[in-house]
Amino acid sequence: MSRNIRFVQGNEACVEAAIYAGLSFFAGYPITPSSEIAEHLARRLPQIGGKFIQMEDEIASLCAIIGASLTGHKVMTATSGPGFSLMQEALGYAIMAEIPCVIVNVMRGGPSTGIPTHGSQGDINQARWGTHGDHSIVALTASNHQELFEVTVSAFNLAETYRTPVVLLFDEVVGHMRERLIIPEKGELPLVERLKTSVKEGVDYHPYLPREDGRLPMSDFGEVHRYNVTGLYHDMWGFPSSEPRVVHGLIRHLVDKLENRVNKIAMFKEYFLEDAEYILISYGSAARSALHVVKDRRLRGERLGLLELQTLWPFPADIVRSKCSDAKAVVVVELNMGQVLQSVKIAVDDSERVFLANRIDGVFIMPEDIMNILRLIQGKGV
Amino acid sequence: MSRNIRFVQGNEACVEAAIYAGLSFFAGYPITPSSEIAEHLARRLPQIGGKFIQMEDEIASLCAIIGASLTGHKVMTATSGPGFSLMQEALGYAIMAEIPCVIVNVMRGGPSTGIPTHGSQGDINQARWGTHGDHSIVALTASNHQELFEVTVSAFNLAETYRTPVVLLFDEVVGHMRERLIIPEKGELPLVERLKTSVKEGVDYHPYLPREDGRLPMSDFGEVHRYNVTGLYHDMWGFPSSEPRVVHGLIRHLVDKLENRVNKIAMFKEYFLEDAEYILISYGSAARSALHVVKDRRLRGERLGLLELQTLWPFPADIVRSKCSDAKAVVVVELNMGQVLQSVKIAVDDSERVFLANRIDGVFIMPEDIMNILRLIQGKGV
Amino acid sequence: MSRNIRFVQGNEACVEAAIYAGLSFFAGYPITPSSEIAEHLARRLPQIGGKFIQMEDEIASLCAIIGASLTGHKVMTATSGPGFSLMQEALGYAIMAEIPCVIVNVMRGGPSTGIPTHGSQGDINQARWGTHGDHSIVALTASNHQELFEVTVSAFNLAETYRTPVVLLFDEVVGHMRERLIIPEKGELPLVERLKTSVKEGVDYHPYLPREDGRLPMSDFGEVHRYNVTGLYHDMWGFPSSEPRVVHGLIRHLVDKLENRVNKIAMFKEYFLEDAEYILISYGSAARSALHVVKDRRLRGERLGLLELQTLWPFPADIVRSKCSDAKAVVVVELNMGQVLQSVKIAVDDSERVFLANRIDGVFIMPEDIMNILRLIQGKGV
Amino acid sequence: MSRNIRFVQGNEACVEAAIYAGLSFFAGYPITPSSEIAEHLARRLPQIGGKFIQMEDEIASLCAIIGASLTGHKVMTATSGPGFSLMQEALGYAIMAEIPCVIVNVMRGGPSTGIPTHGSQGDINQARWGTHGDHSIVALTASNHQELFEVTVSAFNLAETYRTPVVLLFDEVVGHMRERLIIPEKGELPLVERLKTSVKEGVDYHPYLPREDGRLPMSDFGEVHRYNVTGLYHDMWGFPSSEPRVVHGLIRHLVDKLENRVNKIAMFKEYFLEDAEYILISYGSAARSALHVVKDRRLRGERLGLLELQTLWPFPADIVRSKCSDAKAVVVVELNMGQVLQSVKIAVDDSERVFLANRIDGVFIMPEDIMNILRLIQGKGV
Repeated sequence: MSRNIRFVQGNEACVEAAIYAGLSFFAGYPITPSSEIAEHLARRLPQIGGKFIQMEDEIASLCAIIGASLTGHKVMTATSGPGFSLMQEALGYAIMAEIPCVIVNVMRGGPSTGIPTHGSQGDINQARWGTHGDHSIVALTASNHQELFEVTVSAFNLAETYRTPVVLLFDEVVGHMRERLIIPEKGELPLVERLKTSVKEGVDYHPYLPREDGRLPMSDFGEVHRYNVTGLYHDMWGFPSSEPRVVHGLIRHLVDKLENRVNKIAMFKEYFLEDAEYILISYGSAARSALHVVKDRRLRGERLGLLELQTLWPFPADIVRSKCSDAKAVVVVELNMGQVLQSVKIAVDDSERVFLANRIDGVFIMPEDIMNILRLIQGKGV
Repeated sequence: MSRNIRFVQGNEACVEAAIYAGLSFFAGYPITPSSEIAEHLARRLPQIGGKFIQMEDEIASLCAIIGASLTGHKVMTATSGPGFSLMQEALGYAIMAEIPCVIVNVMRGGPSTGIPTHGSQGDINQARWGTHGDHSIVALTASNHQELFEVTVSAFNLAETYRTPVVLLFDEVVGHMRERLIIPEKGELPLVERLKTSVKEGVDYHPYLPREDGRLPMSDFGEVHRYNVTGLYHDMWGFPSSEPRVVHGLIRHLVDKLENRVNKIAMFKEYFLEDAEYILISYGSAARSALHVVKDRRLRGERLGLLELQTLWPFPADIVRSKCSDAKAVVVVELNMGQVLQSVKIAVDDSERVFLANRIDGVFIMPEDIMNILRLIQGKGV
Repeated sequence: MSRNIRFVQGNEACVEAAIYAGLSFFAGYPITPSSEIAEHLARRLPQIGGKFIQMEDEIASLCAIIGASLTGHKVMTATSGPGFSLMQEALGYAIMAEIPCVIVNVMRGGPSTGIPTHGSQGDINQARWGTHGDHSIVALTASNHQELFEVTVSAFNLAETYRTPVVLLFDEVVGHMRERLIIPEKGELPLVERLKTSVKEGVDYHPYLPREDGRLPMSDFGEVHRYNVTGLYHDMWGFPSSEPRVVHGLIRHLVDKLENRVNKIAMFKEYFLEDAEYILISYGSAARSALHVVKDRRLRGERLGLLELQTLWPFPADIVRSKCSDAKAVVVVELNMGQVLQSVKIAVDDSERVFLANRIDGVFIMPEDIMNILRLIQGKGV
Repeated sequence: MSRNIRFVQGNEACVEAAIYAGLSFFAGYPITPSSEIAEHLARRLPQIGGKFIQMEDEIASLCAIIGASLTGHKVMTATSGPGFSLMQEALGYAIMAEIPCVIVNVMRGGPSTGIPTHGSQGDINQARWGTHGDHSIVALTASNHQELFEVTVSAFNLAETYRTPVVLLFDEVVGHMRERLIIPEKGELPLVERLKTSVKEGVDYHPYLPREDGRLPMSDFGEVHRYNVTGLYHDMWGFPSSEPRVVHGLIRHLVDKLENRVNKIAMFKEYFLEDAEYILISYGSAARSALHVVKDRRLRGERLGLLELQTLWPFPADIVRSKCSDAKAVVVVELNMGQVLQSVKIAVDDSERVFLANRIDGVFIMPEDIMNILRLIQGKGV
């Protein structure tokens, strides 16, 4: 059992979780503060028979894992904001072609090269809207290493279940912080394996023909079936089409397969929400300070609660609305200028009771920062 | 006078407007449905002593115009969704380094290569959130060629005024449609020229020290002053800094220079809003059908109005809220799954009276489509 | 005319206004930041035949002017917080015995000796509640010297009209700041003179028998009529009574003579309130920064307004409620921990849209401080 | 056991409780209706080795006990409204210098000398706001002698725990009424003793450096440590400072040490609140009639409840709001013109459902008075 307890950085926890989930192919290009993920995988993947490739840039990295995924591998790449921006075109391809893959973005301050070694949560809306055209996506996050491990495993599970890219949005604070991690025993966390087609060799395989449950079985590319993979709107054989019915059907499929399951995909934690007058909504490292504030204020009898989001996209609007329906005010705590704030404003009935507690100067938000903003929101001044 | 009246595609109108505004450097890579912009400029720019370069890809194209802008030129590139996705990393650099430049995205259906020769308005939120990190941006659009001309000139003016990239979000319908354009006489439309520093050679020039009015004078790169240009957070000399006060000050500057002037930057047209019970909000080609509906219904005595947005970012939330404050319902008409819809929902007091009239199958939205949706909203059924 | 333009401290403006209003007797004990009032009056009063006495402490000072007022003089004393605390017992006597007098409190930071030479607005609620028992009082303030002059004249007018102590709550910033003052010509501002009884010598005079209009004529003490003056509940002759009907009648009279005329006594200024979405409520020096913010934001098209209170007590609740009925949020700007804030919260319908923008560290609140708090209140974060 | 049962005035119950709590020094000046407290202590304190001093006035009385407290004694003074007004300046000093002391105000009608031998509850807001400057304070009350005993012991405990003056706001009715009192055995009620510093002689002692739990250990003045005690803003050594950070930190400390523990400090009793449609809020002698009404109406099946406050300051707003959240109407029963009424209005969400049942004519409020007002509130007319 002692073998399974580690004192690690978040980036290393992510590596171990990916391996636990079945990762066998990683391609990447190093960038602070994500580089430890590549470093550890360069050592760990060969130990278990997997492949690690350092690519010439982030575009190549994402394209490499898309190809590897098509051949039947569970795949991942890791980067930070600037690299994630470079990946936007290939990300749209993966969405359109329904390629299971996991992309880690350990966020630093942006835009551009910004502030490499300081934390930020500035890429939340980019994960949703960074590539062009209507689409949907899954993005997850975590505030501590144990949950980061579980969330990373979930990322692979969701990617395989829905044939979709899943983005892991960690932040520099979580990525670089060291804390205890208990690696679960094999079997402790459920794993979703690639759904392979049962269509035999020589029989017509339709890569985009959904089963009754909506899932699309895959056939390892280069093996027994020949089929087309494209970024264009396509029919059930994967061949391009601009037939309005086909276009409409495909785009609705790409969006609905995630948005219609938003409550199933939603992972979150709640603390003291039942009778909360003031609800903090937070995620990632910022949620650590938010939780501290809530526990501290509860000791004093104040009715504060925390909703910690682990699924950021598709945004769990119904859950947020229902949890916040009785709150006097909702305070989104995040390390940016108000990105989840926008989704919360759309979700709740009365957007004027939604406030923002944030920092944007590269310094981690402390409980005191949140409490000072709470005072102002409560109309108590400085 | 006859010389000034043309019957052109929207893409050609854009070219003539850019030249009118002072464009002297264009770099690009062809992509449908924007290619006519490059084609025409390849012919037109040499005629007026400007430079046209075809680059190896869209990343190189944006980087080339960033460099040319720094040397004192008014610059532009043009692309469509996939190319715009590739530009996201360099776009963040231009935002951070405050480089005046104009980027045209003639939108087609996405994600990925999608549906090249059909119209869409699916890249609205990408224009705002496509690059990583907190930032702001200007994005403009137009629904007819005369306004497309004016809006293009405004794009150059805003880029120079605020030292910012400006995105022109046209759509395939507008880009390819032919209609009459009267090219204004020189002087008819005001032009904003590059604000050059008055600091002499040999005197310390601060590229990021605002004047009293907030504007940052530039010095042609490679000429008399040496200074640093970086994508990192930087001080007034352009040198990297992770000092929290500097980081906070810079990010607020980058955002506030646009968001605090949202009402000044806002361009829009309004039709019959004063007493409108139902307000359509639309933009680009979709606004043509919306306007048709409004005019048609007014003839029947129905109190319908149209707010046509030309400035999409920064989103003119105050204007939308104030124009819609007395409306029973607001219907956003757009060729996507509801992107401006989200901004309108945040802007108005009661998001439950905001509806969407759209098409996502590559077919242009017709007045009849809008009218059918209106009936449903009015509780009149199908 | 040039004789009437001065460049003076607020304290000197107060002195000139008091003389303009008819002040002929001042007793006081020096305390920063009010001392200049005593200094200037020590020179000015003898010039016009008035009397200046420096007393041994603040208790004696208030008692001295109470006595002088009874003999027919317009009277004033001036102090700061610690002295005002010492005056609370005699203040109650003046309220009960209905003695016209003006008490200036040039506020510094408290409690106790606090921070003598820095500004504060921490004595607002003390002016209302500092003496024991149910009662009402008039308290006025001003943000610039011209208005300070007018408000000081009003203080004397209200004291004489309602036979009540009037408190002038200036703050250190206004008291010590120098700016231009145009002293009005005689007759330009209306003056209220002592209402003397028309009852002749030898005829029974009732010092507490109201005329039809509610006013109580006075008879100079020591002159032709003998009557009783007491701090006990008393009848119309001034003799003590604990008869419930008399007690009830007297306390209602003391309170109603002011509270029922709250809208008449209310002095205030308004800026851009008609269509304001966000209303600042401020007073005294803090209102200078608040006005700056409002004007600055209006230039940018934001719908901000300012309600500047000059009458603090009786609190003009109806006016505040009606002015703020359409505002999204009301922000009280004051140099304390939220004193007028409380009155505003009671006045408006929905106390949860009332916020506080304040400083409590002895530093003057700057427009930037207000704007930062506004951002948080608007849910825009730091 | 019989020795411990008494039939006493409230004032005598207060005396016995103070001695039980450890009182060893009392200084005072007699005033109706508090004089019996001084009378009894003049006899009782010498019996137990304590000191009783009659001072020349109330200012001297409070100053004397402040000094005695600093030397290590538990101290008290007692007065009524006029004396309490005189104490306001020294009260602010005790707040600023954080001197544990208990001040009893046995309220009579005011303002001024008012109505000495009749009851009133007119000094509630004065206890909070009587001294100048922002501050906080503890004020307690009771409606019967057994609770008056316990509340008095709590007053000493809170004074020592938080190094703060505590005001006991009794009223003439409670002070002079005789009823049964069982004096608790030693140890039955917990006592808080002075927290003495563990810093040895010759080692630097910081009188204003909080321990980890926020408490400030004291050192008997005149003993082994020399330190500064001032009414000015001061640093952790007690030396004056006008440094904004120090000023802000001290004022927040003075306020937060009480306001942040409002729920801990809150003492109250509740009767039939669970399902109450109409909630009476009362305190002191008035709560006796309110309780009578509630019990009487419950017998008739009416859903009436009573919240009796024992802690008046810091005002337990959260508790009031939460207890009243489901009530149709809240009726504050008090012997003044509506002082706790104001705090209740700020506390509850909808201030328009808060009503006042009071008397202000010196006559005790009877159950019938309350019932008449209730009828009107319930829309049943007179």
